[in-house]
Amino acid sequence: MVIVVLELVGLAVFSASGALAAVRARLDLFGVVVLGLTTALGGGIIRDVLLGITPPTTLRAWPYLAVPIATALGVFAFHPQVARLRKAVLLLDAVGLGLFTVSGTATALAAGVPAYTACLIGMTSGIGGGAMRDLLLREIPLVLRREIYAVAALAGAVVVVAGARLGLPSVLVTAVGATLVVVIRLVALWRRWNAPVAPGLT
Amino acid sequence: MVIVVLELVGLAVFSASGALAAVRARLDLFGVVVLGLTTALGGGIIRDVLLGITPPTTLRAWPYLAVPIATALGVFAFHPQVARLRKAVLLLDAVGLGLFTVSGTATALAAGVPAYTACLIGMTSGIGGGAMRDLLLREIPLVLRREIYAVAALAGAVVVVAGARLGLPSVLVTAVGATLVVVIRLVALWRRWNAPVAPGLT
Amino acid sequence: MVIVVLELVGLAVFSASGALAAVRARLDLFGVVVLGLTTALGGGIIRDVLLGITPPTTLRAWPYLAVPIATALGVFAFHPQVARLRKAVLLLDAVGLGLFTVSGTATALAAGVPAYTACLIGMTSGIGGGAMRDLLLREIPLVLRREIYAVAALAGAVVVVAGARLGLPSVLVTAVGATLVVVIRLVALWRRWNAPVAPGLT
Repeated sequence: MVIVVLELVGLAVFSASGALAAVRARLDLFGVVVLGLTTALGGGIIRDVLLGITPPTTLRAWPYLAVPIATALGVFAFHPQVARLRKAVLLLDAVGLGLFTVSGTATALAAGVPAYTACLIGMTSGIGGGAMRDLLLREIPLVLRREIYAVAALAGAVVVVAGARLGLPSVLVTAVGATLVVVIRLVALWRRWNAPVAPGLT
Repeated sequence: MVIVVLELVGLAVFSASGALAAVRARLDLFGVVVLGLTTALGGGIIRDVLLGITPPTTLRAWPYLAVPIATALGVFAFHPQVARLRKAVLLLDAVGLGLFTVSGTATALAAGVPAYTACLIGMTSGIGGGAMRDLLLREIPLVLRREIYAVAALAGAVVVVAGARLGLPSVLVTAVGATLVVVIRLVALWRRWNAPVAPGLT
Repeated sequence: MVIVVLELVGLAVFSASGALAAVRARLDLFGVVVLGLTTALGGGIIRDVLLGITPPTTLRAWPYLAVPIATALGVFAFHPQVARLRKAVLLLDAVGLGLFTVSGTATALAAGVPAYTACLIGMTSGIGGGAMRDLLLREIPLVLRREIYAVAALAGAVVVVAGARLGLPSVLVTAVGATLVVVIRLVALWRRWNAPVAPGLT
C-alpha cells in the first residue's frame, strides 16, 4: 500500500515536471497533458519493453493514467504557482527518481536478468521519462548534462541489487536505495556538484 | 479487402507527408525514402512493440513496405507538384489518421487490453508516425502543437472501444470511428480550432 | 571467437564515435559514457525489441557493456588524440557498420522473418546506434544526410540474405557482406559520393 502511494506520488511529480516544461514551450492544453503523461510513464514503458513485459504495466491500470493526467491539468491551470514552488518540485523530482529507480531495478531482478543488467534497466527507468520529455521538446536531455543525476540513480540501483544478493529484506533495501538516490541528488543540487567535462576544452 | 486498400492508402499518405518534409529539409534520396517509411510505419511499429506483437505486422508483408517506398520516390521526383496539392495532402493525412487510429484501437482490443489502454494505444498508432518524423527532423512534434490533432484521434478510439463494448458490428464501428476523426480534423483545420495554451502566458 | 572479437571491436568503435560527439557537445563525464553506450548498443537493442528478443542480448553479457564503457572513458581522457585519428575513426566506423549490419541480418533470419524484413532489421541494426546518438545531441541523424551510409548497410544485408537463400556457408557470406559494406562506405568517403537531393531545390 505504501509502495503504491509512493509510486503514484512519483508519477504525479514527473508528470508535473513534463507539464511545466510543456507550458513553458507554449504547447496547448493537449500537448501539456501528453508531455506530462510521457514524462511520467516513459521510464516504466522503456523498462517493460526491454524486459518483454507487454503491454507495459503502467498502461494496464487506470490510476497510473489518471494521476498524471490530473496533475498535468492542474499544472496547466496553476502553472505560475507551481513554478514558484521550484524547490519543492526539485525535491519531489528527486523522490520520483529514487522511487522509479528502485522499483525498476526490483522489477528487472524479478524478471531474472543479471545484476548489472538490472542496474542499467533500473537506472533507465528512473531517467527515461525525463529524457523523453527533453527529446520531445528538442533539448539535449538534462540528465546527460546536469548535476549528478543519473549517477544518483545508478547508486540506488546498485544498493537494490546488492541487497537482493545478500538476501536482505526487500522493504529495507528499497527504502535505503531510494533514500540514497534522494540524498545524493539533493546534496548535488545544494553543493552544485557536477561531473567534470573533458580536459582541454575551453 | 476494402480495409486493406484503405490501410495502404493511409501508408501512402503518411509516407508522402514524411517524404515532403524530408525534401524540404534537403535530405538526399535515401533520407527521403527512410523518412517516408518511418512516418508510414512508425505508429504501427510502436503499437506492436507495446502489445508484444513481434516482429511488427507491417514489417512482415511486402506491400506495407513497397507502397510507402514507391510513394516516397514519387514525392522525391515530383515534390513541387505534391506541395501544390496542399489541401489534398491535408485531407489525405486526416484520412490516414482516422484509419490508423481505428485499426490500432481494434488491434489493441483484440490483444485483450483494457478499454482505456486500447484508446491510448490506438491514439498512439495514429499520431506516432508523425511524431517520429518531426523528431528525426529536429522539430517539436506538430501533434503536440497544432490544431486539434491528437484529440481527433482520441475521439475515434473512444468510438471503437464503445462500439466493441456494445457489441455493434465492427465494420460499422470502424467506419463511424474513422469518419469522426476525419470530420473533427477537417473542421478544426477549416475553423482554425486550436486547444488553448496555458493562462497567463504573454 | 573471431566473430566475438569483431563484435567487440564494433562496439568499441561505435562507442568512441558517440563519446567523441558528446565531448564536443560539452557533456560531462557521465553524459559521455551514456552516449558512448547508447551509440554502441542502440542498434542491437532496437533489433532485439523488434524481434521480441527480451531482454536484449547486449544487456545480458558484461563484456558488451564493459568494452563500450572503457572506450568512452578513454575518449573522455584522450579526446584530442582521438580526434586527430579522424581517418582511423572513419575506417573503424565503417567496419562497425559492416559488422553490425551482417550480424543483425543473420539474427533476424535466425528468428524466422521474411527476407526483406531481415534486410530492413539488419540495416537498422547497423545505423540505429548512430541515429540515437544524433537524436540525443539534437542533430538531424547523419545517416539521413551524408555520403552513402545506409545504402552501404542495405547492400551488406542483401548479401547476407541472398547467401542464406543459396545455402552458402555463413562464415563466407558474413565476411563478404561485411567487406562489401566497408568497401562501399570507404569508396563513398574517398570519392565524396552522395545520393542526390530532390530536383528543383536551389
